[in-house]
Amino acid sequence: MATATVPAAENELLYNQVAERIADLIDAGTLRVGQRVPSVRKLSEQMGVSISTVLQAYRLLESRRRIEARPQSGYYVRPPERAKLPTPGQSKPPATPTKVRIVDRVLGVLRATSDPTYVPLGGAIPGADVLPTKQLNRIQAAIARRSPRASNAYDGPSGYRELHVQVARRYLDAGCALSPDDIVSTCGCQEAITLSLRAVAKAGDVIAIDSPAYYGHLQAIESLGMRALEIPTCPGEGMDVGALRAALRQHKVAAVLSITNCQNPLGFIMPDEKKRELVELLAGREIPLIEDDIFGDLAYARPRPKVCKAYDAKGLVLLCSSYSKTLAPGARVGWVAPGRFRERVECLKICTTLATPTLPQMAIAEFLANGGYDQFLRRACATYAEQTRLVSQAVRKYFPPGTKVTDPAGGYVLWVEMPAGTDALALHERAMRERINVAPGPIFSAKGKYANFIRINCGNPFTEEIDRALLTLGRLASA
Amino acid sequence: MATATVPAAENELLYNQVAERIADLIDAGTLRVGQRVPSVRKLSEQMGVSISTVLQAYRLLESRRRIEARPQSGYYVRPPERAKLPTPGQSKPPATPTKVRIVDRVLGVLRATSDPTYVPLGGAIPGADVLPTKQLNRIQAAIARRSPRASNAYDGPSGYRELHVQVARRYLDAGCALSPDDIVSTCGCQEAITLSLRAVAKAGDVIAIDSPAYYGHLQAIESLGMRALEIPTCPGEGMDVGALRAALRQHKVAAVLSITNCQNPLGFIMPDEKKRELVELLAGREIPLIEDDIFGDLAYARPRPKVCKAYDAKGLVLLCSSYSKTLAPGARVGWVAPGRFRERVECLKICTTLATPTLPQMAIAEFLANGGYDQFLRRACATYAEQTRLVSQAVRKYFPPGTKVTDPAGGYVLWVEMPAGTDALALHERAMRERINVAPGPIFSAKGKYANFIRINCGNPFTEEIDRALLTLGRLASA
Repeated sequence: MATATVPAAENELLYNQVAERIADLIDAGTLRVGQRVPSVRKLSEQMGVSISTVLQAYRLLESRRRIEARPQSGYYVRPPERAKLPTPGQSKPPATPTKVRIVDRVLGVLRATSDPTYVPLGGAIPGADVLPTKQLNRIQAAIARRSPRASNAYDGPSGYRELHVQVARRYLDAGCALSPDDIVSTCGCQEAITLSLRAVAKAGDVIAIDSPAYYGHLQAIESLGMRALEIPTCPGEGMDVGALRAALRQHKVAAVLSITNCQNPLGFIMPDEKKRELVELLAGREIPLIEDDIFGDLAYARPRPKVCKAYDAKGLVLLCSSYSKTLAPGARVGWVAPGRFRERVECLKICTTLATPTLPQMAIAEFLANGGYDQFLRRACATYAEQTRLVSQAVRKYFPPGTKVTDPAGGYVLWVEMPAGTDALALHERAMRERINVAPGPIFSAKGKYANFIRINCGNPFTEEIDRALLTLGRLASA
Repeated sequence: MATATVPAAENELLYNQVAERIADLIDAGTLRVGQRVPSVRKLSEQMGVSISTVLQAYRLLESRRRIEARPQSGYYVRPPERAKLPTPGQSKPPATPTKVRIVDRVLGVLRATSDPTYVPLGGAIPGADVLPTKQLNRIQAAIARRSPRASNAYDGPSGYRELHVQVARRYLDAGCALSPDDIVSTCGCQEAITLSLRAVAKAGDVIAIDSPAYYGHLQAIESLGMRALEIPTCPGEGMDVGALRAALRQHKVAAVLSITNCQNPLGFIMPDEKKRELVELLAGREIPLIEDDIFGDLAYARPRPKVCKAYDAKGLVLLCSSYSKTLAPGARVGWVAPGRFRERVECLKICTTLATPTLPQMAIAEFLANGGYDQFLRRACATYAEQTRLVSQAVRKYFPPGTKVTDPAGGYVLWVEMPAGTDALALHERAMRERINVAPGPIFSAKGKYANFIRINCGNPFTEEIDRALLTLGRLASA
């Protein structure tokens, strides 16, 4: 690829500029709906950029739904999206730390998530048809034949090195220069988060988190006897750094825990400038940042977004992720790059689960190296963007007036704010009785806030069953 | 099999009696060394017991090395073993709880364990040639083809139910009437232990443990900020219940953590009567017992030994195990039957690692159901017994006079007491420089006791390389 010869940052700038130029032409009416945009070759000549830069620009516009590809014909300007629902505003959580008590409610959602008799709008699970299961199984079988001993042996304390090589290589795209030795494998991202929390804080300590926060984060904090401090969070840009700064003056915060890309449940990607600001704020106070990037590869626009870790000069960022949301939920292959806390995390890892599954690590490493992960991601992201759009439309159609819904920049969940007074917990219970699983807002808050919110999983194809389930949810929300 | 019609306990009694009768005849000289013992059919007629009972009795005598099978010919009386080394005496650990600090030393052993350039006498790892890897891989591939969706999905919060059905069925042999719903899957036995500790105790609490104790137990205790109280432990029979009773009077003990079968590193099987006594002592004081049975299936004599859980009337025993020592170290498939603490353990499980690897659980469940696990265990146990005997012989040959070694009833580790003054840590360091991995005694104690002990892994075939490594260790011990 031509892009290989251009430094990543420069190239990114370039094709973003190209995309913006075309978007301007559409906005100005120079290129009209249904009209063919210039061919790749022609634009490449016109603008003096490489074919591959133009291709990347067009893919970006495609994922932003400004243009669409027609087979054997080229790219065409798409009709504008129908008017969107308003998005929820910035959160205003209470400004005091809380002991968390939500684990029991979460259990109900998780149990129904692995029960196929429920319509799967609850847990944030990828679509079974999107996952490259067949390919992974083929790779796994080949490795098992080739390396029967190694693939059935205990993995070493830090994990499978070739996986770390692949992770390090890929995170160059996220602005990080990791060494494979910086990384420790974990049993999924949840273990990465738990170990990170244990490495930097102890029972009673205050952890500043997003609001709403992923319930798995709240559970980890709860189970370790720590306290959560919810920071106001903007659905479009993430944690409010000013509000965090103010909170740090008021409270002794042991660590910040945040999803910075395609946040669950809000779907935002924190802008780069804000990421840098967040890292610098914490660096000045020597406060660790536990960054959960589990959805980072599922950003709808390419290249994938940067991580806060990219700005981490002091080794204070513990970057956590896994392949559960992209490739293999059942494999339990996650990892953490714990910065200066690496030794402590590795020790906690062997004390907690000793080792990470060996063969699944080997298979995922090989898939990342040779399996066409980039191509897979392009397809997967387009699918998830489309499914999410369809669910959003259905919410608009079926839910009561005044409902707001997020406009995620990646991943496959929607955060829905129903009119004030709607009882999401009651809705959840009634929905469960109709075999519809959905995640009620209060499990995303240590204070039980978000009483009138739900999170909807859009990982699965938009079938009639899902359409009917959304109709039912809308009816329950209107009741 | 005829045994299926006889209740397990009655049958066990019966064939033990038959075996003892024959052993008496050998001791009395009625059956002499090299002589053929009565044929199975003949003895069955003579004693009025079933063919299968006689067969079991002969297998037991074979595993005790009193008789040996000669192909196409029958069983013969074996020559007595050469005089054995004396076994180490009962431990006398200090009677005060200690904060544990051994994790760094353990890391060295674990890193070398997964490094094939070291002679593998360190970590307690099963022999690669003993493991049914090929069969497991075949099963796994078949499941992946048959159930691509389910095998690549998140597993439910408590784990894969069919695995729990198999575990419950098998633990009938250990005297336990478990329901599948009593069981929670974990990422290996280490997670089962960690979750159990967290379910019943908190930072600062005192946990009573074996002395010497498996270092993984000490690490779990250390990493959770709990304190270990070492209880005197007899190499032949396990934790001294009298000494524990005395300790309970002196200290507020939150839980007891013990390996009751084929203990690591001592190799004892706690006698049934003592197991009952231990459970009753703790039940009277409402103190939970975390029982680690990871080596229980590897007892050299059949049927497998009972567990303390068999005597647990109050739900105070948390029974932990995994298939890492028997079938698949790399799979990370463990489980816990937490008694009355089940709900709490399940909650902690989802907070810590969310789920257990799906496909490996499915494959192991199917192997347990249809893969000939019993036959596999018979072969594996015979192999491990023989390898352990050969290493023990080599220790006798190469180590300095005054060396003592355990006589394990199962598993594949030996606990070696070298003459007083021998420095096991220095020996360990020198051995590592010669690319020999061995576990130094002090990592088996919260107090750094066992300065002149090492644990030797016998999981691998007794090769020339291992013989040479033992010669080297003996030389280092004599230096």
